[in-house]
Amino acid sequence: MVKQARVLSSEAAKFVGEKILLKGWVRIRRDHGKLIFLDIRDRGGIIQVVVNPKVSEKAYKQALELKPEYVVSIIGKVNKRPENAVNKDIVSGTVELEATDIEILAKADVLPFDMGSEELNLELPTLLDHRALTLRHPKIQAIFKVQAVIIDAFREFFKKEGFFEFQAPSIAPAVAEGGAEVFQVDYFGHKAYLSQSPQLYKQIVMSAFERVFSVNKIFRAEPSVTTRHLAEVVSLDAEMGFIESWIEVKDMADAVVRFILERVEKECKYELKLHNATLPKIIAKTPVLSLKEAQEKIFKHSGRDVRGGKDLNPEDEREICSLIKEETGSDFVFVYGYPTKNKPFYVYPNPEEPEYNEGMDLLCRGIEWLSGGRRINDYNQLTKHVKEWNLDPKKISMFLEAFRYGVPPEGGFAFGAERMTMQMLELRNVREASMFPRDMERVDERLSNLK
Amino acid sequence: MVKQARVLSSEAAKFVGEKILLKGWVRIRRDHGKLIFLDIRDRGGIIQVVVNPKVSEKAYKQALELKPEYVVSIIGKVNKRPENAVNKDIVSGTVELEATDIEILAKADVLPFDMGSEELNLELPTLLDHRALTLRHPKIQAIFKVQAVIIDAFREFFKKEGFFEFQAPSIAPAVAEGGAEVFQVDYFGHKAYLSQSPQLYKQIVMSAFERVFSVNKIFRAEPSVTTRHLAEVVSLDAEMGFIESWIEVKDMADAVVRFILERVEKECKYELKLHNATLPKIIAKTPVLSLKEAQEKIFKHSGRDVRGGKDLNPEDEREICSLIKEETGSDFVFVYGYPTKNKPFYVYPNPEEPEYNEGMDLLCRGIEWLSGGRRINDYNQLTKHVKEWNLDPKKISMFLEAFRYGVPPEGGFAFGAERMTMQMLELRNVREASMFPRDMERVDERLSNLK
Repeated sequence: MVKQARVLSSEAAKFVGEKILLKGWVRIRRDHGKLIFLDIRDRGGIIQVVVNPKVSEKAYKQALELKPEYVVSIIGKVNKRPENAVNKDIVSGTVELEATDIEILAKADVLPFDMGSEELNLELPTLLDHRALTLRHPKIQAIFKVQAVIIDAFREFFKKEGFFEFQAPSIAPAVAEGGAEVFQVDYFGHKAYLSQSPQLYKQIVMSAFERVFSVNKIFRAEPSVTTRHLAEVVSLDAEMGFIESWIEVKDMADAVVRFILERVEKECKYELKLHNATLPKIIAKTPVLSLKEAQEKIFKHSGRDVRGGKDLNPEDEREICSLIKEETGSDFVFVYGYPTKNKPFYVYPNPEEPEYNEGMDLLCRGIEWLSGGRRINDYNQLTKHVKEWNLDPKKISMFLEAFRYGVPPEGGFAFGAERMTMQMLELRNVREASMFPRDMERVDERLSNLK
Repeated sequence: MVKQARVLSSEAAKFVGEKILLKGWVRIRRDHGKLIFLDIRDRGGIIQVVVNPKVSEKAYKQALELKPEYVVSIIGKVNKRPENAVNKDIVSGTVELEATDIEILAKADVLPFDMGSEELNLELPTLLDHRALTLRHPKIQAIFKVQAVIIDAFREFFKKEGFFEFQAPSIAPAVAEGGAEVFQVDYFGHKAYLSQSPQLYKQIVMSAFERVFSVNKIFRAEPSVTTRHLAEVVSLDAEMGFIESWIEVKDMADAVVRFILERVEKECKYELKLHNATLPKIIAKTPVLSLKEAQEKIFKHSGRDVRGGKDLNPEDEREICSLIKEETGSDFVFVYGYPTKNKPFYVYPNPEEPEYNEGMDLLCRGIEWLSGGRRINDYNQLTKHVKEWNLDPKKISMFLEAFRYGVPPEGGFAFGAERMTMQMLELRNVREASMFPRDMERVDERLSNLK
């Protein structure tokens, strides 16, 4: 075969009339009379290849060998398609390749299911059992392309805003807050744990760098299987010092959500279309409700009396989101002001009504996207809370040291990347939005299959 | 205090003659006769503030209260410094702030050691015991600013080259290769492990996306304390399909190293200067030696006969690097072609001399920066190796499935972010280049302090 530079399917339309070298996977082979049509998939997208024995008998013979997922190298001429044969659904849709040379780079076994149709009609467990293969399906790839854009946009936004990126640790020495839902690690004969949240670390790093963000892993050993929980999650964290009030933290969260939505909208048109998904609507001013106002609104609307409840439960979250959507058109709503005693020790109590705090959540389409708020920065107030929350100060001594030596008013928040992906693409289960989801039933393999 | 937008120290020089609002930490307070000088640190850098009782008696009184690491909000006028008082070492060095208003935002306890001098003269254990505080020192901050640029440059390079970013999992189901040096996790009553490497996952994801990269955590339970090993490491991974030979993999590794060095050189001048560090020299064509050639060279030079050795040991690595440096001026050298049997099962054997493989390392200044090479992509060859390496194919069934269904010729590599940081700044210990280093003696706390 002649040595020449490879051209991606997405670039082929620039070479009409020329011979190019294409490399990729056989997605579909269709035999029509004396012609063979191939859909070839590469990282640029999909392109149609025509193999005509009158053009090349050798290529045709080789094409007869091809099966789905064979890896091939093809030389051929780029031809413009007639108007009525243009395929608008693929990026190379105005052209096709007329093959003159086909080389098989790798063969594939017979597939366990059809990978060539537009939908991959598999039950989730099967889809995940065969993750190595199903990752090749365009609709599955679309999920992770959207996720990559979400994460990249998160970082881009905060770099522009002067935030410093740090790497949060995954192994943690002790569990300051919250109990059993943590994974234990045998650490050189000592007990250590997988981090449930980089919260205390990001506050430490903020105390030195002012504005910080981190893309990191968090681990939750929740012994329940729901459609929105994973044992290993990609957490997008930010923390900022020198605020005047929690409103600045909320506004920063609002701004990054807008930025992420804009980039996904711009860069993922094809992926959104594949999933027939509509991005959540964010209006000019995102609605903001206190917990009490939200509860009042639910009571007024449906008569369900959750007033005085310590938090919104999933049903409340769905109801308040749908009420806000009706009233304002917004898919997003901030809820703030939770009972101080029911939230972590570091959340800042509202000075005017200290039994409620300045913690906040951002809900979207019935699900929590983000959690955050203002934190306590005064060392004395913090140590008082540590006592009142019955925590062992020795277990968070590094965290407390930061605040002992001067920390400005501050706050921050965290997103879960998989949940955002799930909601943007209107997936039914968060596992679809994790490439290698970990839960109490699976770590690649189903745990029930293991001894 | 008047409401006005905050100005960072790094922007102050744009406001000569104007009143600005500055916020930050008191780094140093010096009393000179009737004047008080403050070095204020914010995320932009350091700026000098002069407090003159003749300008503001109130500000002066407040300044008398200030101690190191107090958090302050200062209003003052930006004055140009006389030529002979310009401080070239700080970004705001052409100006100083004449304070008219000072407000204390947070107080600090008396520091356990001096944080105001240029050097932080602490033993490493003390430095790490007080990480929450020592992170505020400019020389320590410089380390993590360089690290952030390294990681960001790594990502930028691969995005430009059409690589897809994915999130590698941290919890792994089984240990395919290599033995005891792995952390075990109690996973819902099952045994799981912390990932030692995303190797198999990145090959899976490559088999769907062609070109992939990941910034992820790897975990090594090596029961030894050296100056270059950590239990938790930030791994920078890349993998690429459709290569013709391992040379393309080497060239890609070479190119990303150049790109990272360029960005660090351009963006971290101040940080490099603080550490009095010279970046490693990369010449037009990075030298490449086979393992055999490297061993021959060592023998020729020093008479030390390591010919036939299965790998380079640390002494060999130092010697070959210093020989290459002398000969060519290059701080970098690629070494390739290791005995097939001594490397992981997936490394591609040289077809012309199958007892040696097409694995490679990049050494710099005596230390391995990168490890990688071409991998086996043929399913039959791979399963043959799995048998010969006495591995349990069930434990890597997801990985094998990828190759069962067609994978092009491919290769990749991985860097350790902390080692690169250490070497660029000429640090003595890799722990200095990890914000919260984990090793067999420490997880934040010294393990010997725990029950």
